[in-house]
Amino acid sequence: MEKTRAERLIANAKEVDAVVILNGGSPFLDSTFWYLTELIGGSFEGSLAVVGKGGSLDIIVSALEAETAMSGKGEVHVYHTREERDNYLKEALKGADKVGFNVHSASYSMVEYVKRTIKGIKVADASAAVSLTASVKDSREIELMRKACGISSQVAKEIPDMLSEGITEKEMAFRMDVRMRELGGTGNAFDTISAFGANSSKPHHAPTDYGLRMGDAALFDFGTKYDGYCSDMTRTVFLSKPPDILERAYGLVLEAQTAGIEKYMDGAPAKDADLAAREVIDGSEFKGKFIHSFGHGIGMDVHQDISVSPRSEHILKEGNVVSAEPGIYIPGLGGIRIEDTCLITKNGCERLTDFDRRITFV
Amino acid sequence: MEKTRAERLIANAKEVDAVVILNGGSPFLDSTFWYLTELIGGSFEGSLAVVGKGGSLDIIVSALEAETAMSGKGEVHVYHTREERDNYLKEALKGADKVGFNVHSASYSMVEYVKRTIKGIKVADASAAVSLTASVKDSREIELMRKACGISSQVAKEIPDMLSEGITEKEMAFRMDVRMRELGGTGNAFDTISAFGANSSKPHHAPTDYGLRMGDAALFDFGTKYDGYCSDMTRTVFLSKPPDILERAYGLVLEAQTAGIEKYMDGAPAKDADLAAREVIDGSEFKGKFIHSFGHGIGMDVHQDISVSPRSEHILKEGNVVSAEPGIYIPGLGGIRIEDTCLITKNGCERLTDFDRRITFV
Repeated sequence: MEKTRAERLIANAKEVDAVVILNGGSPFLDSTFWYLTELIGGSFEGSLAVVGKGGSLDIIVSALEAETAMSGKGEVHVYHTREERDNYLKEALKGADKVGFNVHSASYSMVEYVKRTIKGIKVADASAAVSLTASVKDSREIELMRKACGISSQVAKEIPDMLSEGITEKEMAFRMDVRMRELGGTGNAFDTISAFGANSSKPHHAPTDYGLRMGDAALFDFGTKYDGYCSDMTRTVFLSKPPDILERAYGLVLEAQTAGIEKYMDGAPAKDADLAAREVIDGSEFKGKFIHSFGHGIGMDVHQDISVSPRSEHILKEGNVVSAEPGIYIPGLGGIRIEDTCLITKNGCERLTDFDRRITFV
Repeated sequence: MEKTRAERLIANAKEVDAVVILNGGSPFLDSTFWYLTELIGGSFEGSLAVVGKGGSLDIIVSALEAETAMSGKGEVHVYHTREERDNYLKEALKGADKVGFNVHSASYSMVEYVKRTIKGIKVADASAAVSLTASVKDSREIELMRKACGISSQVAKEIPDMLSEGITEKEMAFRMDVRMRELGGTGNAFDTISAFGANSSKPHHAPTDYGLRMGDAALFDFGTKYDGYCSDMTRTVFLSKPPDILERAYGLVLEAQTAGIEKYMDGAPAKDADLAAREVIDGSEFKGKFIHSFGHGIGMDVHQDISVSPRSEHILKEGNVVSAEPGIYIPGLGGIRIEDTCLITKNGCERLTDFDRRITFV
């Protein structure tokens, strides 16, 4: 029988007796809680999931979440008072000495709460084990990510038709967000980046009332959720012909993306993709203008588990889903980024997102 | 001259030499970072803000965020390597012995990173000081929250016209989200709750394909962001006449909300509002069916700073913004919740949200 997610997690967390997943107050919620329970939605502030040796899964939730929690995996314990929560936690961690936490996704106060409640436990970092487990997507997860990516790909194709001189960054972000919902998305994976002209040189620009002008680059970085899973893609187009330097930058970014994606396959070091793309850009007139990593893991969070940077130590595995997103940023003038969501396969990778990557003049 | 936000924070954090605000990876971002810098947007993963004695504000960001950061408050330090980040942090914390952290909104790993980088510092919990500072809204913040609340109020008024037999929970959530954006909202403050019939008894229900039926309660809990600030409101209506018990529950929830809101004023213990509302419901046939707190603080996060529960120790202050949201939940049958966003004033409170609270049969 196929192992449960909890069983896979505890098998990966070799040196601990249990792994505790903690939710604080929103937005300090760990998607691992939803991953393990296979629940969709619910708030689950202050809820805990405890994975024990052998793959047992105890879910500790308040009365507020009881009805929702019952429809998911794990043995559900409903508390009505803080003391009841403490007691369920003590019971779930009985006999555990070394306890693993997902330290990047647990608040300091929640970890301290567990240490205070269960005297004498040793705190271990189980984040690598969580990443190792959650970053290998199963067939159900891949299906949901395919749906999310299909929705945003359709919107990417519609971008040139939506654009016209004078339309503002905010209007475009709004139209794209609406289209993703119309096509079945359940909400933004993140705030859509819609950046025109000089604004596109800021990788994380927030949309303004700036209106699109002739010669501007128009950069859109967007994604939707579908039953909890994210897509992530970036398309950059131009309103008529831009300055030559931006055309040249576009060609380089496309070449860099292709070079990076060629390195994506099961067993390959993630950093190879970054280095291949960086070599293309740093070997050009745009040396030093690719100011972020080539990619990151994607799952229930839009940045998750895997880093695809020059210093990444991750070895890609079949079932990993990672972005491929080189960029060139020229302050005061504009930026170019091209991004796909890619599924790592045995012999390469499959782009889950799809749009016309050739240079496009609207 | 009016004190800066950083000056107010360090004045409230009496016993520490500095307060460090930490962003991890998304979604583990502390809104306090945006509060202090007065920036709108940007990602700022891995960025830090350090408030020193006297109210100095050092902002440590990666090259990716440099251009955006420059438009905000504070002295910006841009790092290109981890070592550079470490050095800026050491410089900003020079001479500091006891360092305060916003422990509910900082990841365990980020606090450990600071402890590792600045040997010998004593970690203090500065979350109360952060809450004390950020929970008293200044006039600019109130203006933004008024805008956010105005947008969602308009949508609340339109709900009866949007509803018809057979419309699904997902369709309604989508239409409301689109309307909030059309009216100028910059994105959802949280995933809209749209819950019909028996689903409405789950306070945090995620929308499904269930279609609205005659006699169903239809509960909508929703809010928008406007330049970073949130609104939060809940309206429950019925598609024709519901079972009598739900009509009675509606009347009680409305009465409970009124009783609670009467306690909202500068200087009053927050718990008084919860207790007054709870007395109404627990003194009725629905004893024990009000299974959550009466309210919570609202700001850049939709749940922030203040708890309005039976055990809250918070004393309300002019400028606090809190929800007022009693509910009655009857598993298998349905739930009723009525919620407004309220601004605490000298002599009472002002509802920033506005809709017809009388029982409504569509």
